Amino acid sequence: MSDLSALPFSSRHIGPSESEQQRMLETVGFASVADLVAVAVPEAIRAKDHLTLPAAAGESEAIADLRALAGRNRVLTSMIGLGYYDTVTPAVIRRNLLENPGWYTAYTPYQPEISQGRLEALLNFQTMVSDLTGLDVAGSSLLDEATAVAEAMTLARRASKAKSDVFVVDADALPQTKRVLATRAEPLGITLVEHPLDDGELPECFGVLVQYPGASGRLRDFRDLAARAHEAGALVVASADLLALTLVAAPGELGADIAVGSSQRFGVPFGFGGPHAAYMAVREGLQRQMPGRLVGVSVDADGAPAYRLALQTREQHIRREKATSNICTAQVLLAVIAGMYAVYHGPDGLRRIARRVHRHAVALAEGLREGGLEVVHGQFFDTVLVRVPGRAAEVVAAAAERGVNLWAADTDHVLVACDEKTGAAELAAVWGAFGLDRAGVDLEQGHDALPAGLLRESEYLTHPVFHSHRSETAMLRYLRKLQDKDIALDRSMIPLGSCTMKLNATTEMEPITWPEFAGVHPYAPEEQAEGYRELIGTLEGWLAEVTGYDAVSLQPNAGSQGEFAGLLAIRAYHQANGDTGRDVCLIPSSAHGTNAASAVMAGMRVVVVACDDNGNVDLADLDAKITKHRDQLSAIMVTYPSTHGVYEETITEICAKVHEAGGQVYVDGANLNALVGLAKPGEFGADVSHLNLHKTFCIPHGGGGPGVGPVAVRAHLAEYLPGHPLRDGTPVGPVAAAPYGSAGILPISWAYIRMMGAEGLTAATEQAILSANYLARRLAPHYPVLYTGRGGLVAHECIVDLREITKETGVTVDDVAKRLIDYGFHAPTMSFPVAGTLMIEPTESEDLAELDRFADAMIAIRQEIAKVASGAYDRTDNPLRNAPHTAASVAADEWSHPYSRTEAAYPVHSLRDGKYWVPVRRIDQAYGDRNLVCACPPLEAYED
Amino acid sequence: MSDLSALPFSSRHIGPSESEQQRMLETVGFASVADLVAVAVPEAIRAKDHLTLPAAAGESEAIADLRALAGRNRVLTSMIGLGYYDTVTPAVIRRNLLENPGWYTAYTPYQPEISQGRLEALLNFQTMVSDLTGLDVAGSSLLDEATAVAEAMTLARRASKAKSDVFVVDADALPQTKRVLATRAEPLGITLVEHPLDDGELPECFGVLVQYPGASGRLRDFRDLAARAHEAGALVVASADLLALTLVAAPGELGADIAVGSSQRFGVPFGFGGPHAAYMAVREGLQRQMPGRLVGVSVDADGAPAYRLALQTREQHIRREKATSNICTAQVLLAVIAGMYAVYHGPDGLRRIARRVHRHAVALAEGLREGGLEVVHGQFFDTVLVRVPGRAAEVVAAAAERGVNLWAADTDHVLVACDEKTGAAELAAVWGAFGLDRAGVDLEQGHDALPAGLLRESEYLTHPVFHSHRSETAMLRYLRKLQDKDIALDRSMIPLGSCTMKLNATTEMEPITWPEFAGVHPYAPEEQAEGYRELIGTLEGWLAEVTGYDAVSLQPNAGSQGEFAGLLAIRAYHQANGDTGRDVCLIPSSAHGTNAASAVMAGMRVVVVACDDNGNVDLADLDAKITKHRDQLSAIMVTYPSTHGVYEETITEICAKVHEAGGQVYVDGANLNALVGLAKPGEFGADVSHLNLHKTFCIPHGGGGPGVGPVAVRAHLAEYLPGHPLRDGTPVGPVAAAPYGSAGILPISWAYIRMMGAEGLTAATEQAILSANYLARRLAPHYPVLYTGRGGLVAHECIVDLREITKETGVTVDDVAKRLIDYGFHAPTMSFPVAGTLMIEPTESEDLAELDRFADAMIAIRQEIAKVASGAYDRTDNPLRNAPHTAASVAADEWSHPYSRTEAAYPVHSLRDGKYWVPVRRIDQAYGDRNLVCACPPLEAYED
Repeated sequence: MSDLSALPFSSRHIGPSESEQQRMLETVGFASVADLVAVAVPEAIRAKDHLTLPAAAGESEAIADLRALAGRNRVLTSMIGLGYYDTVTPAVIRRNLLENPGWYTAYTPYQPEISQGRLEALLNFQTMVSDLTGLDVAGSSLLDEATAVAEAMTLARRASKAKSDVFVVDADALPQTKRVLATRAEPLGITLVEHPLDDGELPECFGVLVQYPGASGRLRDFRDLAARAHEAGALVVASADLLALTLVAAPGELGADIAVGSSQRFGVPFGFGGPHAAYMAVREGLQRQMPGRLVGVSVDADGAPAYRLALQTREQHIRREKATSNICTAQVLLAVIAGMYAVYHGPDGLRRIARRVHRHAVALAEGLREGGLEVVHGQFFDTVLVRVPGRAAEVVAAAAERGVNLWAADTDHVLVACDEKTGAAELAAVWGAFGLDRAGVDLEQGHDALPAGLLRESEYLTHPVFHSHRSETAMLRYLRKLQDKDIALDRSMIPLGSCTMKLNATTEMEPITWPEFAGVHPYAPEEQAEGYRELIGTLEGWLAEVTGYDAVSLQPNAGSQGEFAGLLAIRAYHQANGDTGRDVCLIPSSAHGTNAASAVMAGMRVVVVACDDNGNVDLADLDAKITKHRDQLSAIMVTYPSTHGVYEETITEICAKVHEAGGQVYVDGANLNALVGLAKPGEFGADVSHLNLHKTFCIPHGGGGPGVGPVAVRAHLAEYLPGHPLRDGTPVGPVAAAPYGSAGILPISWAYIRMMGAEGLTAATEQAILSANYLARRLAPHYPVLYTGRGGLVAHECIVDLREITKETGVTVDDVAKRLIDYGFHAPTMSFPVAGTLMIEPTESEDLAELDRFADAMIAIRQEIAKVASGAYDRTDNPLRNAPHTAASVAADEWSHPYSRTEAAYPVHSLRDGKYWVPVRRIDQAYGDRNLVCACPPLEAYED
Repeated sequence: MSDLSALPFSSRHIGPSESEQQRMLETVGFASVADLVAVAVPEAIRAKDHLTLPAAAGESEAIADLRALAGRNRVLTSMIGLGYYDTVTPAVIRRNLLENPGWYTAYTPYQPEISQGRLEALLNFQTMVSDLTGLDVAGSSLLDEATAVAEAMTLARRASKAKSDVFVVDADALPQTKRVLATRAEPLGITLVEHPLDDGELPECFGVLVQYPGASGRLRDFRDLAARAHEAGALVVASADLLALTLVAAPGELGADIAVGSSQRFGVPFGFGGPHAAYMAVREGLQRQMPGRLVGVSVDADGAPAYRLALQTREQHIRREKATSNICTAQVLLAVIAGMYAVYHGPDGLRRIARRVHRHAVALAEGLREGGLEVVHGQFFDTVLVRVPGRAAEVVAAAAERGVNLWAADTDHVLVACDEKTGAAELAAVWGAFGLDRAGVDLEQGHDALPAGLLRESEYLTHPVFHSHRSETAMLRYLRKLQDKDIALDRSMIPLGSCTMKLNATTEMEPITWPEFAGVHPYAPEEQAEGYRELIGTLEGWLAEVTGYDAVSLQPNAGSQGEFAGLLAIRAYHQANGDTGRDVCLIPSSAHGTNAASAVMAGMRVVVVACDDNGNVDLADLDAKITKHRDQLSAIMVTYPSTHGVYEETITEICAKVHEAGGQVYVDGANLNALVGLAKPGEFGADVSHLNLHKTFCIPHGGGGPGVGPVAVRAHLAEYLPGHPLRDGTPVGPVAAAPYGSAGILPISWAYIRMMGAEGLTAATEQAILSANYLARRLAPHYPVLYTGRGGLVAHECIVDLREITKETGVTVDDVAKRLIDYGFHAPTMSFPVAGTLMIEPTESEDLAELDRFADAMIAIRQEIAKVASGAYDRTDNPLRNAPHTAASVAADEWSHPYSRTEAAYPVHSLRDGKYWVPVRRIDQAYGDRNLVCACPPLEAYED
């Protein structure tokens, strides 16, 4: 390297230094990384050429580029509404949560003991949603309002006793909701009927959607409608605005069975469409039918209250094609923000904000009326629909000139939505756009426009958590306290197989909270989002280059949605070819559960293909299944490298067989971190993949989302990528409410690729492979390592097998996972893809010291297991079975265990410097499901 | 409040809600805050009018205003040099340290047990400085390079055996250094002699300053000079550039006794002049003479290594007028950043950066020479001096047009300084400014311009800490690990009397890292800093309004410097009046030690005035001292409210007496938080005050700095405020290197005042008074509360007296302070102003729950003391004497104490939720001073 060049970013992203890499190579038995890769990665799949990407930029250069892109977005005041409203993110929450790696680098709280902080935060979110909607049980977040409505539709279908395939949709529903519903309904054979929902007869149906308030702003009482629907055996879904619910009657009080909506306006910036958390709440009796995650209260081994994910048997990772939904990664970080917004404002503050919004809307309407304009609805919360025959576009243009975006509902109507930021200046600009000069008008004039019978009388947010953090100091400390309960990447490695918990570099993260990226409404005029569009176009191109595909859509806002979009593309392709009978989706038994759930959503039948003893697809069974379903064969979904962490040698053969039978090949991109720069699915035989930008491309996991799941396809499928949510007539409809999904976080992946360049990306993949093999070698003398490929090598993750150990000693994967907490680690992936095993993915970002610290912990645990085997430790009362150990438990006055406190708390010396203390002991999962509590428990529950 | 108004920021800043405030008033026995204030604050000092300030802005509005101001700064590439060089703050450090309240809200590490994280960080800084300078002992940070040179000058005078008052100053020293030296030398009777330091004779002197490299860029070997100086009994001070020292011989190797300089270019942004940390290192034997703080290694009660401030008996808070310096708050946060920059880059990375800078400077010089221009010096590190007869201003203007700031050293010479950010584009712009087109030139050409005999051969940064955190992941975790060891305001209240640890709101903090504020060089042309200048002008005006003075200077970059500047103004005023004999400064015995130290620096003689039993100035003694020193009386320095936390009724009388005798009144603004909105020192009799923006106006303490100590004066002193550091001929010279001191953090105080408005500021003061009185009432039944004023009330802080308790039980203030750690609290101020007491200042930002939690802890501790008294606890082996208790100590296998582990660790139930675990036990202060170690100890020290 020349004296004139600066240190490349890749040397910060990749954990091991060159000398560390050399030591690791020695352990694995190779002279160079190239030698290792030559053996590990099958020649047949190796990419023909190096990646063609711009030369790697330094961190300062990338930031400068992003500032230039940001500068090409024009942030106007957006009063467009349509489900997205401007909001003030409290600075204390932005800095200490949204910009804090202690929160954003956390993983999904599957290990609840080390996730109590974010689980409490999610319980606040659920309590808030449940209170505001007046429904019994709320879950922890869905992807966006439109897909949440779609989830509610399928829930209603499952739960309804009506013998109908009809779902009635409010004519006043949000336009993007209607389109996403259409995309989701068709493959499932659901017929959508749009209906004004006035007093007339309801069609026979299994469910009814009411938008509350309506897209046009209209507020109406749907009590009678709900009663009529219930009489007909249909369920009522209300898509409701949480802020409005602080002033008007709750959906549950009006008879809704299910409420959904967005929590965006509770402190989460526009971000050109996302990420934002949607919510769902249901009445008692429907909770087992809910899609997505649900936080519940249980108890730990000491009987203390403790939180964890409840009723997981509903979910895709267990129920596969019988799951309530394919939802997996949701929008946890954003749900946490929305919950904290409620914690910070409390019920009084929320009511104040809502009243302020409402009073501005009233003043706006009064001013328009007094100026001689027709305001269509007399009853509204925040949105005013104005009739301006033939002039809508003109008014919208005049407003934009005044720095305000409005929405032309059609050629004759303009929508104006007030929000938390609306003040006198904004109203003056809007009036001006309508040609009125209302300077100096008294904004206090005019009566409320809330229907008298619809005023909210019930209390909400009465729990102390919504009353105790009103000063910034108190809020700051609450955020810190919760953060400190959890393990995230800022404390130690999170070696989760298949989840790729790599560095989320600060330089990648910083731009997402810049106002120029955060402040753009998803439906702002195109010319205001030039920077975004160039960034998106560039990123699509780079992802196509990296994967070898021809076209990419960034719309899917989670991997699950990418899968769904990919399968829809395949479906549409077959249908366009007249192959309407192709509905079989082959899925290997080792697949992620999401694959099967997505196939069902796409109207396919799942046929499972067996795996052989090495975890590879059983080619004989594949042949048999292809033969049997030849004419119905739609697709095969495989993960590559396999979910066992092996580069299957037969992948090209599998692709060929499926293609030969007229099927399409879907390669799940979950393990793309083992391929980037070395192999391209689009080249070695696949037709479509989804990627996980939150795995391979550095978007942080956020404690369970946001994710971004772009779908990438070969040219013949390009026209079947998801359509625009506000445009009709695309071959395939939209799969998300926003045109580019969670656009607000795309700068992260853009920056990663920009700073790594082709060489850096390839080096990262090579290091990820080396690190996995290094760990495999270090652990192999102590634990059997399952499923190795050529040369006894693994790909980017390795599976250690506990089954024999469990049989001999009674020590389970659970015991090892919980014991790792005592050593300061998040457990690897448990019992996937093989029950009784742990799957470890170190990623390229962990340096040698951390890899060794983890290996040392695993080996020390193996020695503890040996003591159980030898009888030196009791079979049931030992540090493994009792793990994790809280500080309170090891500092208790009584100590009755046959092992020492030191063995419990400080099994290795390094723990004496900055040990992580787990806040609860092992959590009783069954108790929590038997005694389901999904809202904040009373404070008395925490007393001695 | 109208429905249309938003929640004011003051309701977030002020902890207690209205209902909490009412409950507190009931406890204190008043119906309203107004009633309380009417009794507590003497009528005589009450301000005549409400404050005249703009109406309070909301947080969004304040941010918008600041964005507009920021937008009026133009950030050019500054290659001006002169001690300030552009640098890349690693993003991981910016986000997780500079923007992290866990770091920036910490207090000075006087309580070392809860400060191990930042003490380790400072030890890294000291190790770095000591290694790079080749000197034995380095301290933890001074205020800026110019004042550090001044401190080195006075150190040399104290340590030199030469009988001379002459200090020889390198003619090639930085211009601002020369001017600050002049300000500092004159009152002390030191004669400065500027000298080229060539081979000729040295004047007789006590010390010599060498700038290394020189301000002109010249690099020279000063070995011979040092030898000659030493022969003459003089000490050698080198003001050295740390980055250059990675390539050239260390000052210590060349014979320097003292090295000083700035650590700014190690990752700390320009900030229009600061804050940045200066450094000082000395050879063995001089460490007890060093100014400022020094971190040392000691052991805790278990014999484990532990860090704490060493040799504190040198410092102003103990030695008062005999201290080594008046330095108090320094630049800890910035020193931590600089140290972390070295940790992140390591020696290889620093050397790489230095070589890159040097090679760019060489290329620049080559290009200029080849273009026919004269480069004055052949040997340089980063700065090139170019001779352009008569054209300097023209070249500088041409460069500015190309986006680059250069420096016209005089009409014929231009300075160009390369830095970490310099690349080919910058060189091209510079060449262009000189009229050269050198596009496409090979930057690799040309030989190094480092003198052959001066190349660095010694190693540096060999400690593992500088080799183990090279990946961003590793760096992130290191920062988190250290942060977690400490208590800062993000965990619990820090009830430090006289230090006003209030909320540092995020909205106040966010702007300081915006590039438009962070990226401006202190000597950038005025028209590039319009936003800054308006902000500064506005802030000066607001501070004048708040204090009742007529003029304010923001130049002093610490309270100590504000004191010095204020006393200089008084001195200059007397001299201008022909009162050259007025050199007596009266200081009450209860004063902050800094007062006396500052008076000495300003050439005054300190005469102590006694205090009466109530802690008030003893008027009889005052009269006596005035009478005795009538003709020499220069000033009195008093703190108001007094350091005892009482509104002295006699303050107006004191002012009158001093004025009558021809003296000036200096009111120390340390306790201004008890006055804002209620009383103005400039109105009730004072002539000058310094304020502490880091106390009253929300600049965070940063673990011991940055501070800002503006000096405010009445009109007759206005012309004696500090002069510009680059301008000659002002009545008083500059007290800091940058014209506006630590300008980069002034947006914090600006935002605070902008968002609070007159009403909010006054309400804050009232709440601070109420909170102090509430705590006094709650604690009074358990501890005697000293020094109350009218109505038995205190001002904004209260003193609880342990002396009787200590006498009866042996339990000391130290024991209570350390026991508070077990309860999760930082101790109050210990033994100031009265030995054997604790001074508690809750501030307005703590809510009632936190105040009660603290009071409950103090009361529980009192009950523990009672057990010692009753014999229920052993006199020596009790939870107080053994406090604090680490997790390791309460989880140890052996427990031999007569009290239980639960009593040790969980004396109150609330600790079971998120207890702070102190990382070390009580630290042996004496051991550390006896065995002085001030650099990172080897890792073996931490082994069992």
